[in-house]
Amino acid sequence: MSQNAAHSLTMAGPSAIQADAQRRAIISLSTDPSMPISAINYEDASPEVRAVFDDIKSSRNVPDVNNFWKYLARDPALLKRTWESVKEVMAPGALDPLTKEMIYLAVSVTNGCGYCIASHTAAARKAGMTDAMFGEVMAVTGMANETNRLANGYRVPVDKMFEETR
Amino acid sequence: MSQNAAHSLTMAGPSAIQADAQRRAIISLSTDPSMPISAINYEDASPEVRAVFDDIKSSRNVPDVNNFWKYLARDPALLKRTWESVKEVMAPGALDPLTKEMIYLAVSVTNGCGYCIASHTAAARKAGMTDAMFGEVMAVTGMANETNRLANGYRVPVDKMFEETR
Amino acid sequence: MSQNAAHSLTMAGPSAIQADAQRRAIISLSTDPSMPISAINYEDASPEVRAVFDDIKSSRNVPDVNNFWKYLARDPALLKRTWESVKEVMAPGALDPLTKEMIYLAVSVTNGCGYCIASHTAAARKAGMTDAMFGEVMAVTGMANETNRLANGYRVPVDKMFEETR
Amino acid sequence: MSQNAAHSLTMAGPSAIQADAQRRAIISLSTDPSMPISAINYEDASPEVRAVFDDIKSSRNVPDVNNFWKYLARDPALLKRTWESVKEVMAPGALDPLTKEMIYLAVSVTNGCGYCIASHTAAARKAGMTDAMFGEVMAVTGMANETNRLANGYRVPVDKMFEETR
Amino acid sequence: MSQNAAHSLTMAGPSAIQADAQRRAIISLSTDPSMPISAINYEDASPEVRAVFDDIKSSRNVPDVNNFWKYLARDPALLKRTWESVKEVMAPGALDPLTKEMIYLAVSVTNGCGYCIASHTAAARKAGMTDAMFGEVMAVTGMANETNRLANGYRVPVDKMFEETR
Amino acid sequence: MSQNAAHSLTMAGPSAIQADAQRRAIISLSTDPSMPISAINYEDASPEVRAVFDDIKSSRNVPDVNNFWKYLARDPALLKRTWESVKEVMAPGALDPLTKEMIYLAVSVTNGCGYCIASHTAAARKAGMTDAMFGEVMAVTGMANETNRLANGYRVPVDKMFEETR
Repeated sequence: MSQNAAHSLTMAGPSAIQADAQRRAIISLSTDPSMPISAINYEDASPEVRAVFDDIKSSRNVPDVNNFWKYLARDPALLKRTWESVKEVMAPGALDPLTKEMIYLAVSVTNGCGYCIASHTAAARKAGMTDAMFGEVMAVTGMANETNRLANGYRVPVDKMFEETR
Repeated sequence: MSQNAAHSLTMAGPSAIQADAQRRAIISLSTDPSMPISAINYEDASPEVRAVFDDIKSSRNVPDVNNFWKYLARDPALLKRTWESVKEVMAPGALDPLTKEMIYLAVSVTNGCGYCIASHTAAARKAGMTDAMFGEVMAVTGMANETNRLANGYRVPVDKMFEETR
Repeated sequence: MSQNAAHSLTMAGPSAIQADAQRRAIISLSTDPSMPISAINYEDASPEVRAVFDDIKSSRNVPDVNNFWKYLARDPALLKRTWESVKEVMAPGALDPLTKEMIYLAVSVTNGCGYCIASHTAAARKAGMTDAMFGEVMAVTGMANETNRLANGYRVPVDKMFEETR
Repeated sequence: MSQNAAHSLTMAGPSAIQADAQRRAIISLSTDPSMPISAINYEDASPEVRAVFDDIKSSRNVPDVNNFWKYLARDPALLKRTWESVKEVMAPGALDPLTKEMIYLAVSVTNGCGYCIASHTAAARKAGMTDAMFGEVMAVTGMANETNRLANGYRVPVDKMFEETR
Repeated sequence: MSQNAAHSLTMAGPSAIQADAQRRAIISLSTDPSMPISAINYEDASPEVRAVFDDIKSSRNVPDVNNFWKYLARDPALLKRTWESVKEVMAPGALDPLTKEMIYLAVSVTNGCGYCIASHTAAARKAGMTDAMFGEVMAVTGMANETNRLANGYRVPVDKMFEETR
Repeated sequence: MSQNAAHSLTMAGPSAIQADAQRRAIISLSTDPSMPISAINYEDASPEVRAVFDDIKSSRNVPDVNNFWKYLARDPALLKRTWESVKEVMAPGALDPLTKEMIYLAVSVTNGCGYCIASHTAAARKAGMTDAMFGEVMAVTGMANETNRLANGYRVPVDKMFEETR
């Protein structure tokens, strides 16, 4: 493992260190002073980051990407992989995009991720979620969080008939 | 705290202690030797518990309630309140029952509640969830759990436009 | 999905759409400009929401309900069901209200729910929680969160004697 | 919702239904009677699933893939995307594979995922984790889970100097 | 960092490696064949582990320690630190031991830690928890988990009066 | 309950009540008006709290302790125990401090603890975490959170070979 660590340092190398320095410089030169630290704006982005931003903007038909993507842009490989996975997962399939956004929201609410709750509430609204639907997503999410703990606390064994269903 | 416990026992009163003893006796006399300890079967249930069991069976058109309800039956007030809330929340409304079951499943998977995953996979299947739909619920749930942490770790501030959407 | 959304809107019916529009109008006309978006104040509330607010105010002997209830008021059925459940669950029983509030706080701290930590710290203080008690709730909550993970990570099998205790 | 389900089935199309039927048939004909339901073994796998299995086996130099991949194989697109992401993320980079496996283990322990704790303990052992290292991963994970809750419960505001570090 | 890793290996040294080998040998020679792998029994324990076991047994007045401690014994420093912290935290103070055990149980149920739910249900029973108290701990825990998510999902801002209470 | 509270106050005794009053007085007299409520600054701290603060400052070579410790100082016993545990757990051992800080960060990100994410990102940076390392910690943490849920949802049974590895 010590060899492994050494290897990694060698791999990361001077060019990686320079890239870090360069990225920080870019950030500090950001043309938009209201932008939070550590976000990469389109005008400061490398070509590979711009390519992802362009794909997000055209896929979603929006004038700019939101903060989530600007922050992930600090790691271009992560940005690209995450966007491609999200695009694939959230595309219409056996479930429609609205259902998928509501599931996303329910998970984000369960985890208490403030950013994700805000952004996926907006995304679900855009996909057609009404006030009544929002209310029901919240009600189901709340109820599931409650009964999950009742099942835990009462140590309920799985019914045989459920063991055979996948 | 022994004082506290004694105090509480006094508050709960002798009839509560007798009820406890009676319940334990009933359990040990259960006619089904394979039943796990602490579940209340229909034949051993009090009239108020039977009334809830009957409503579950007729509402869901099933011959018996599943283990979750048999365990909650140890606390008849909790049983009744939980069943009435679940019945109200899971009824068709702005969202159909299948969508609600899939949201329930996504939350249960996020929380890692084994019993709930098994029972709500079965319930969603019964409501029409196909293999393809199941796969997409899992994919969205997994992706949301990942991006929730990326948003946390990159400390992404909420975009202004999301602050106005509820 | 737009089809799905349309379908759901049809299911919910025109009156639901009108109710949504009406509710939004009510919010935008809110007499208190400092109130956050999406809260329903007493003076803007429907009779059924007012009835719940009145019950909260008299049960708790407070001049106004807190934000939690004003937000839930967007969904009157959820508001009513949640309040009735909370009232029933938090009433004195085998456990006194202070003990219940401290358990509520410990769960909220474990889940990292900022709103709930703030409101239930206040509720527990009101019910008699001293600085020393608060310190011990935190200490137990922290320790339980640590040892829960040690038990997970060391994959400790349940002792036989614990399997028989419920 | 039966309509919704029917609609989705129509969207997924007859070939999807046939594929489902075929898959179930394949599982029930599995040559290994000890295999749990719903796992796809190599001999029963489609060419696209086999391609992923082959890549896992050669990348990790193992005679067979573990259960996780056999279960994901029910959704070939998910299987492929997950494997490719895992392969990319867990490859040596700025961090060595052992460090990455220990982080994976710490997260799995925090979430209480039994399968993941077992498989990533094994993976970390294979990558060089000693008993002493394992003990320290557990100790740090436990401590972090404790202090996370103390910070929550005491509602500690972020120090100014930390706001500038990303 | 590679130096650091190397340094750590040096620190761990041959004696640590021998200790590991010795420990594994001890485990495999365990006199009780039904004991799960990786637990250290009293008769196989080192003097420092025995000292902790003895303190647990006398403090709790039990004939043997439970599995949790036998597993932690693989890391004597962790065992000692955890036991001393638990002993200090769970001692009678501003809160009585029963209240502390119920809080511990509520946290364990929230986290879904199976071992901890089983062992702390038993501990709370021993400290005086009646069936009625157990039911109320579960009810409060379930309700808190539900309302935590409603507060998250409705994005309820903290009331001003709660910001001043700590 | 009010009786319970009164009882506890009696148990804690008059000196505890005086200490509470004194502490609150100290806080309100804090010399730094920008300090958040409930933090204990060095100049207001008791000798036992100062001793811990001094040890933190000299161990970490910093001019002042951060907010976490100033808040825990409300409970001197908790402060002392937590600091001593953290100091012991985070010291160089089989793992170097950087690896430990990255594990701490991964857990904090998983739990969504905002304070802890900020402070341990800073601590990891100080211990040598580069931008590239940070990116990989995030990527592994995100991936683990995703696959933890896939393993849950697909109900993957533990492979036999993993059951034997601890």
